Amino acid sequence: MSTGFQFTLLTTDGAARRGEIATPRGRIRTPAFMPVGTVGTVKALYPEQVRDAGADIILGNVYHLMLRPGAERVARLGGLHSFMRWKGPILTDSGGFQVMSLSQIRKITEEGATFQSHLDGSRHLLTPERSIEIQCLLGADIQMQLDECIEHPAEHREAERAMELSLRWAKRSQVAFERLSKPGQALFGIVQGSVYEDLRRRSAEALVAMDLPGYAVGGLAVGEGHEAMLRTLEATLPHLPTVKPRYLMGVGTPEDLIEAVARGVDMFDCVMPTRNGRHGLAFTWDGRINLKNAKHAEDTSPLDPQSTCPAARDYSRAYLHHLVKSGEMLGSMLLSWVNTAFYQDLMAAMRLAIEEGRFASWAEATKARMGRTTS
Amino acid sequence: MSTGFQFTLLTTDGAARRGEIATPRGRIRTPAFMPVGTVGTVKALYPEQVRDAGADIILGNVYHLMLRPGAERVARLGGLHSFMRWKGPILTDSGGFQVMSLSQIRKITEEGATFQSHLDGSRHLLTPERSIEIQCLLGADIQMQLDECIEHPAEHREAERAMELSLRWAKRSQVAFERLSKPGQALFGIVQGSVYEDLRRRSAEALVAMDLPGYAVGGLAVGEGHEAMLRTLEATLPHLPTVKPRYLMGVGTPEDLIEAVARGVDMFDCVMPTRNGRHGLAFTWDGRINLKNAKHAEDTSPLDPQSTCPAARDYSRAYLHHLVKSGEMLGSMLLSWVNTAFYQDLMAAMRLAIEEGRFASWAEATKARMGRTTS
Repeated sequence: MSTGFQFTLLTTDGAARRGEIATPRGRIRTPAFMPVGTVGTVKALYPEQVRDAGADIILGNVYHLMLRPGAERVARLGGLHSFMRWKGPILTDSGGFQVMSLSQIRKITEEGATFQSHLDGSRHLLTPERSIEIQCLLGADIQMQLDECIEHPAEHREAERAMELSLRWAKRSQVAFERLSKPGQALFGIVQGSVYEDLRRRSAEALVAMDLPGYAVGGLAVGEGHEAMLRTLEATLPHLPTVKPRYLMGVGTPEDLIEAVARGVDMFDCVMPTRNGRHGLAFTWDGRINLKNAKHAEDTSPLDPQSTCPAARDYSRAYLHHLVKSGEMLGSMLLSWVNTAFYQDLMAAMRLAIEEGRFASWAEATKARMGRTTS
Repeated sequence: MSTGFQFTLLTTDGAARRGEIATPRGRIRTPAFMPVGTVGTVKALYPEQVRDAGADIILGNVYHLMLRPGAERVARLGGLHSFMRWKGPILTDSGGFQVMSLSQIRKITEEGATFQSHLDGSRHLLTPERSIEIQCLLGADIQMQLDECIEHPAEHREAERAMELSLRWAKRSQVAFERLSKPGQALFGIVQGSVYEDLRRRSAEALVAMDLPGYAVGGLAVGEGHEAMLRTLEATLPHLPTVKPRYLMGVGTPEDLIEAVARGVDMFDCVMPTRNGRHGLAFTWDGRINLKNAKHAEDTSPLDPQSTCPAARDYSRAYLHHLVKSGEMLGSMLLSWVNTAFYQDLMAAMRLAIEEGRFASWAEATKARMGRTTS
């Protein structure tokens, strides 16, 4: 095992990139999709299922884990990897997004974000330094700077203020990270600036000047729409170095992932596969399938007879329909598994298409097939 | 594979019995505990986990399955085994108990039980004949007669009336079963009579005269208490033939199972392992463990390092505590798995102790160990 964090760009196909990140806990094949393990579990899945689906890395959340069970407790228990039985790399989000989206009351100052827990109303101050401290206590392999996430739409002036605050927090995060982190861990900066191209460019350039090991694009998929997201991505990625991994945070649908990979994104995370699975929706190569739909009630065919995922291959749509309609936990378990495996299969197919220099035609054919059916 | 239903009493140790039931879908080692798959799923478990835990047979419910997805639908889909992916034998309860415990409004007449669905208030008539028809549509290997279940306590006169109605329903069930069933399927009668020894004896003798392939003891574990349950059992079992399997319905705790096996019971079912698992309670050889308890918050030891069940062996109590406190589905999944495996391990240990002629000493030592700790 290597002891360092190292990104290698193996090949490109147009703007699409095929790479590999070496970490002390194993390699991450990119483009990579990171299943979300919010509260120390990828919901409704055993860790072995996540690994066997093909995931090299999963994501954890500072916001959730600091509130329950607490970062110091996780550290006393041996760190997040041991706690949740995930041997591979873990990336932790800094908490910035959840402070915005989940906490009941929040106040952003130069020092950090003060917020009330969505669980019990208790008050917490999350500073850039404390977020890094928490991520080091958890033992995260890839850590994210604290950023201020704003809602969409936002005025240019407001987006600029938050972007500049996020830059100052990036610098404080870097100082804290250099003090607290272990060899082989990496800190990523987060490009902000809403949908404003000038702000995105300034944010990217300032972060690049800090020479961080990776860069994320934050503040997207917050309601701006698919086209605005892609336009902002196109305005941002050229300002990031080709030799560093690029991570598009909180995205997205299979179509979003294909379009973002086509533009040069290397890493993704999203709750969509598991959340939609819990709500009865399956992602397949033939598009989305809503298992609540009565048309599936007597359909003995599986979701995908060719799948390597037992949940997609061995259970009938009729049975899945019954489980979803009955609110049975097994329905959530099977569909979260189907979707987690599908997202990994999608990434594997993208990686192969890039290696073989046929990404554009693969993407067109795949999007057409996915869009053909709705049910 | 045999094509018939055949019970073989292999050995006895005191009143405890070690036997085997041959069915066209495989053998059932007795004493046997049947995990409950109420609505076509043993809650929060994949069918492979139930099988690998050691279960030879599971239970399904006429009441639930007739309401959703419907017996005719299950039949069109190829039967319950194929629908829920359980290859082994299935026993189905007739619906009598659920009509009493779940339906909003019910009326019992000579013809059958009229009730309103707990799901949507729709009206249904369940007759002895319809219950058998449903069980045949589901493809149940062991079918139960419809009985009238009454609440505890009940006057002697009321218990006698319900017991006699259940006997008349047993005879109608037998006629329907002979008309509708397939070779190798079996119909069990249900002894009723509340806690009254004279009624239990009369019920047992009348059912034995019908020469059914197996007999259940119903109407217990409904609030009469452990001692009254055992006393009623002791008053009933001597009136049942030694060459037929005896099934104690809806029981119970590990201690209940040990005491009932000691008195000659061969089969059990209960929602306790999965329901308690969903509520954060684990059954172990060292007694019950309430994972909600704060004392487990930083305990890195597993529930049972010697267990063959990964959920009991590989996950820390601290992590299970966190999952239960956070309401995460994985907590229910792991603890339902732990308990289902423990109940099967308990039955396997009882079978071995009977084979080796040391059941009484095993039972004393096991009860003492289980009772030693509470947490």
